[in-house]
Amino acid sequence: MSESNFDLRETIVDVVKKRDVKKIKEIFDLIPNIDIAESLAEVEDVKDLIWIFRVVPKDYTADFFAELTTDQQEDIINAFSDKELLELLENSFADDIVDVAEELPANLINRILRVAKPEMRKNINMLLNLKEDTAGSVMTTEFIEMRDNIKVKDAIEYIREKGKDAETIYTIFVKDKTRTLVGTVDLDDLIFAKDNETLADIMNKDFVTCDINDDQEEVANKFKRYDLNAMAVVNNENKIIGVITIDDVVDVIEQEASEDIAALSHVQPLEDSYLETSVFKMAKKCVPWIIILLILGTFTTMVLDRIEKAHIFTLIPVLIAFVPTLMDTGGNAGGQTIALMIRGLSTGEFGPKDFFKILAKEALTALIVAACVSVFAFIWFTLEQYFGIVSISIEGHPALDGANIWNGLCWTGEFATTALLVSFSVSIALFAASFISKIVAVCLPMGVAALKKDPAVIAQPLLTTIVDVASLLAYLGIASVILMRII
Amino acid sequence: MSESNFDLRETIVDVVKKRDVKKIKEIFDLIPNIDIAESLAEVEDVKDLIWIFRVVPKDYTADFFAELTTDQQEDIINAFSDKELLELLENSFADDIVDVAEELPANLINRILRVAKPEMRKNINMLLNLKEDTAGSVMTTEFIEMRDNIKVKDAIEYIREKGKDAETIYTIFVKDKTRTLVGTVDLDDLIFAKDNETLADIMNKDFVTCDINDDQEEVANKFKRYDLNAMAVVNNENKIIGVITIDDVVDVIEQEASEDIAALSHVQPLEDSYLETSVFKMAKKCVPWIIILLILGTFTTMVLDRIEKAHIFTLIPVLIAFVPTLMDTGGNAGGQTIALMIRGLSTGEFGPKDFFKILAKEALTALIVAACVSVFAFIWFTLEQYFGIVSISIEGHPALDGANIWNGLCWTGEFATTALLVSFSVSIALFAASFISKIVAVCLPMGVAALKKDPAVIAQPLLTTIVDVASLLAYLGIASVILMRII
Repeated sequence: MSESNFDLRETIVDVVKKRDVKKIKEIFDLIPNIDIAESLAEVEDVKDLIWIFRVVPKDYTADFFAELTTDQQEDIINAFSDKELLELLENSFADDIVDVAEELPANLINRILRVAKPEMRKNINMLLNLKEDTAGSVMTTEFIEMRDNIKVKDAIEYIREKGKDAETIYTIFVKDKTRTLVGTVDLDDLIFAKDNETLADIMNKDFVTCDINDDQEEVANKFKRYDLNAMAVVNNENKIIGVITIDDVVDVIEQEASEDIAALSHVQPLEDSYLETSVFKMAKKCVPWIIILLILGTFTTMVLDRIEKAHIFTLIPVLIAFVPTLMDTGGNAGGQTIALMIRGLSTGEFGPKDFFKILAKEALTALIVAACVSVFAFIWFTLEQYFGIVSISIEGHPALDGANIWNGLCWTGEFATTALLVSFSVSIALFAASFISKIVAVCLPMGVAALKKDPAVIAQPLLTTIVDVASLLAYLGIASVILMRII
Repeated sequence: MSESNFDLRETIVDVVKKRDVKKIKEIFDLIPNIDIAESLAEVEDVKDLIWIFRVVPKDYTADFFAELTTDQQEDIINAFSDKELLELLENSFADDIVDVAEELPANLINRILRVAKPEMRKNINMLLNLKEDTAGSVMTTEFIEMRDNIKVKDAIEYIREKGKDAETIYTIFVKDKTRTLVGTVDLDDLIFAKDNETLADIMNKDFVTCDINDDQEEVANKFKRYDLNAMAVVNNENKIIGVITIDDVVDVIEQEASEDIAALSHVQPLEDSYLETSVFKMAKKCVPWIIILLILGTFTTMVLDRIEKAHIFTLIPVLIAFVPTLMDTGGNAGGQTIALMIRGLSTGEFGPKDFFKILAKEALTALIVAACVSVFAFIWFTLEQYFGIVSISIEGHPALDGANIWNGLCWTGEFATTALLVSFSVSIALFAASFISKIVAVCLPMGVAALKKDPAVIAQPLLTTIVDVASLLAYLGIASVILMRII
């Protein structure tokens, strides 16, 4: 554990090349499988890998196989005899095999199915056909199920005999004589129980289940809410068809969070890890959203083009200089709200049914935020003009011509009044932009979620467009009203 | 479970008001604690709650207490006799008590410490003093530790006796005679083992540990990587001081993801859930970042103000209309990369040491993305002009004056040439903006991470400013070179 990763890799590759049986066994004993697999990620000679499978104890090899790269897995299955392949399958859980199989070419999947024993073949086939991102796609079919009238002593005996084939023995599922799920027993309660009690005596009746088609995100939310180790997947007669375990849920939580982040950042979620995704695949994930946003941006361009040609903006061109700040601030204010909405919706903290409660809350928040920001902005924009960071010089205007920072400050009379009114106009527009943006940022994701679509993907791009256009129009209106009479 | 939440709440509140002992026991038997606690969230009369604690079996009450609101917990501790409080503490795990205590006023914490037995007092005190967001802050001090020479049979006996006080019995930590951690035994392996084997015979030696001051994010990454159920926290002599269990890690993963999302969306992470955070607190989380970004935006305003007054932009005002698209696209391209970087850094997929590998990958990706986007943009911008969505009408110019969409199309001669060159200039600027943005989006978070600061908080705002200013300057340069000779 104290060795650096680099040394570890050198050592392992070396041991494999030298075919040092004693050393490789020691390595598998002391170092987690994933670290070994990673050290061997660049080994391309399948003979090296096959050698490992032949000399290392069988209880390591199935886990180790699951951690190898897809190319290596493919090579190994090709190189394995039917007997070796069967042995590997026997030592693996059906859901792990399915995770591997999903990346393999069809002929190898067929070979796996041909070699597997009937029971496992059935399980693999079923799991392969389940919809992605549902409870079914993360469940396993290897679990422990017992009748409610079984005695604690016999239950422990049964687990000792059959438990090795189950993905978890920490939760035991209890059924009645009609095979209906009636309770769960945690292994620790079983250990603490008296030998002669029955499972019905000690089981938890306040268990939680899910349906095979439930979204995996909902499943993860239930695990978090109820602090579960395992959950039964049941059919509509409450008969158990599979089990989901916490280690698969950890991956789901991580994946869902990455998907939210990806959607909020306008990139399609990567299927593999970043380092494993090719440059072309990466570009394919990035380009479509940039182009969609660019097309949506046309509305902004269009409105800005009109505004630019509006009387007030040609009269006071400095107004244009504040456009990015206005749009960015509106975007930022709405972005905060939309992130909170999307996170709340996906962690299940609230749903579309809470719409009015949340709208009221955000409206109040928006008022406070917009007020603070616009007061600050008024002061800041005035300072910007006072120090000549931007300048309202207007060509040909008797009082304002030549009032240019390159010529120093001239903070008097009509110039100062106009500058203050410009700051005022921008600040009021900013107030409107922040407020509108936060309100739209509540309504959009909630609406999208109510339609059972993914709010992260749809709501965010629409938000930007709506807020940009609304902010610009508000700006035009406000600036016209406030400044037109002065100039 | 089939009842709707609304009915459930009505029923539970009703049962409590009616002091129906039989019914409330049944409810605790059949319904998860968190659902009951939520149904009672609005019960303010502490007598109602105290009644529950007096009639419901003790094995439910500690969990139930942990799920109540902070106000309710405070009221209950105030109303409890010392004896009742002690009973509650005895039934709880030290880390759960600490989670509650952290929200309580000092006098109540003192009361808890006074009532607790010495051993628990020591544990609570230690846990209360650990740094937030470290391994220590999520660990528990109640775990099972045994000598390596203990027989399987005796180990099971010991667990049956003492296991109830431990937060997990699914992983047993094995020490040698110097109290050094030498292995872990999973409960299932213990169950499957022969009675006369020793723990040393069956223990895993390839276990993973962490230090008390490790960042909780690193800890979570180890759990995911090694598929752990529990991990030992050790001191620098490899002696175990605490244990972290998977259920706490699930919360860490969720929290870290929410923090990444919050930072990327420019809002300070909420400490409580969204619904529990007051409007003022919410505004306080939103306003600072909007103002910081507004101040950073000054650079953009400044540069834009100059550009606006540059010869080429006053000659062809339509160039201004493309500014938001240019800045948005640059921001989007960089935003994608920064999200991938921040996610990769926080899930531990890569680190600052992989900088050059990732820079090379992103540079290639950026080239492809920028090329695709700018080719599309050239066509799109040309169409925009062709259909008069924006218009390059230039006042006083012999060929271009009056070429206004309101007057219909006039796609000929000098007008068409100028429009194409405008599209070309904007597209090239867009290429530069997308490319620069993606490169900066690799360098910034990596640099910030190398300095051991949080990249999500610092890198993103800087990115926007740098990219905006760089894009605008590139735009000015490119437009000047391409268009100056034509007009």
